[in-house]
Amino acid sequence: MPLIDGRPGDRIACADRGLQYGDGLFETISCRDGQPRWLPLHIERLRTGLRRLHLPFREFDALQGEICTLASGQERCLIKLVVTRGTATRRGYAPSGAERPTRIVSRHEWPASGAQTSGFRVGVSDVRLGVNPLLAGLKHLNRLEQVLAQMQCVDAGLDEVLMLSASAHAISGSMSNMFFADQSGLFTPELRECGVAGVMRRVVLRSAAAAAIPIQVRVVSSSELLGVHEVFLTNVRLGIQSVSRLDGRTLASDDYAQRLRRVIDETNA
Amino acid sequence: MPLIDGRPGDRIACADRGLQYGDGLFETISCRDGQPRWLPLHIERLRTGLRRLHLPFREFDALQGEICTLASGQERCLIKLVVTRGTATRRGYAPSGAERPTRIVSRHEWPASGAQTSGFRVGVSDVRLGVNPLLAGLKHLNRLEQVLAQMQCVDAGLDEVLMLSASAHAISGSMSNMFFADQSGLFTPELRECGVAGVMRRVVLRSAAAAAIPIQVRVVSSSELLGVHEVFLTNVRLGIQSVSRLDGRTLASDDYAQRLRRVIDETNA
Repeated sequence: MPLIDGRPGDRIACADRGLQYGDGLFETISCRDGQPRWLPLHIERLRTGLRRLHLPFREFDALQGEICTLASGQERCLIKLVVTRGTATRRGYAPSGAERPTRIVSRHEWPASGAQTSGFRVGVSDVRLGVNPLLAGLKHLNRLEQVLAQMQCVDAGLDEVLMLSASAHAISGSMSNMFFADQSGLFTPELRECGVAGVMRRVVLRSAAAAAIPIQVRVVSSSELLGVHEVFLTNVRLGIQSVSRLDGRTLASDDYAQRLRRVIDETNA
Repeated sequence: MPLIDGRPGDRIACADRGLQYGDGLFETISCRDGQPRWLPLHIERLRTGLRRLHLPFREFDALQGEICTLASGQERCLIKLVVTRGTATRRGYAPSGAERPTRIVSRHEWPASGAQTSGFRVGVSDVRLGVNPLLAGLKHLNRLEQVLAQMQCVDAGLDEVLMLSASAHAISGSMSNMFFADQSGLFTPELRECGVAGVMRRVVLRSAAAAAIPIQVRVVSSSELLGVHEVFLTNVRLGIQSVSRLDGRTLASDDYAQRLRRVIDETNA
């Protein structure tokens, strides 16, 4: 049973602004040996989102306690948390300021289909990500673009799809961030226009910096994808997942992925 | 008490995809003398949205019955309906196909702050609408852009804000559609990039065509706003609402608005 505002429950008010407008944020946290991994990074991203949405949630101690309670005793699981602006106190898009944020913490089984050593087959979605710098980077509840992209991905029998922005920049997978390597080295899209700034992306960037492996964070045009020889994707469930096929083209290399996995394992990052 | 899947209730599963991803649609219906107005247009837009989101909702007879039940006996009220893809049957953005859509029908008091004869003061929001042709026109549950724009609007003491697309086209208000007049006549933004295709907008376009009042539906660049001498906005609550100030500039004319209001009243459109 999930915890809603600290109490076991699985239902929320249908007037909650999370449902009405997607007015909220979420995090998906990987747990191992009874402990949430990278919890400070999740909380930091949540705080960034709350600030940018002007969402006055303050129950961080209770929230972290609930996450740890649900993780306790579990060898592996995922914990999802959702924070919304709360039940609407009046009609219309503008909050009244009198809402009390809702927090939902739920535990989910670790999925059977974990990292594939064989490498992911990745296509390019024709669902583009709308450009909105005010929302870029946040893991907010407005996820219809990802839903449509994932529907296509499943229909096409692919493991993931790369999403471009409306301005034709490569941004991310539908449920992951992406890293690319060509002769110039390793690079990953900046996320100022759109996309989610993933916790695993951050772990990879931090670990690479510590190990002196340069990674450029920059605008990536879709035409650059033709020249890449290695691609991997990241999220907290998959870790670093090598891509074996991108848009029908076979990618032979996974050198960077192996090296970065080693760095992260060794430093327990 | 709202009706949820036909039964009185005010709570939904926190695993509903409407909350988790904004995976659903809504309608706000104006009711007068116990009857929903323009119900066929609302249902038609809902059907368009369902088709484009591949959301297999089919309970239209039940839904319309519930709307009429809640409207019955009310002199004036608003009815909001929300249709989501339903409770998630597995984790992740892709639906399993086994979800059963959720429908929520709720009645709301007619707001005290109705149409203002004095004219609305309208600013230009710096919250841009992300371009996404796959979602453009739909009244879906991903509304964070409108939430942020309305927060600004309220803070600035304005009645409404005009929103531009990321590509700097004028699109709509945060909770309304907009019509403009300059020497060339009346025009309103096309909504192929973003924006909501409002029911009142449709009523105005249809009534204007019947009365041989030409309205161009086209791309409107933000620079054109400097040359307009009349602006009005539309939604089913406000009807046709004249704008007296746009971005600090006074607009003296409301000729088109008056004429179109008359046409709609006379034809009971």
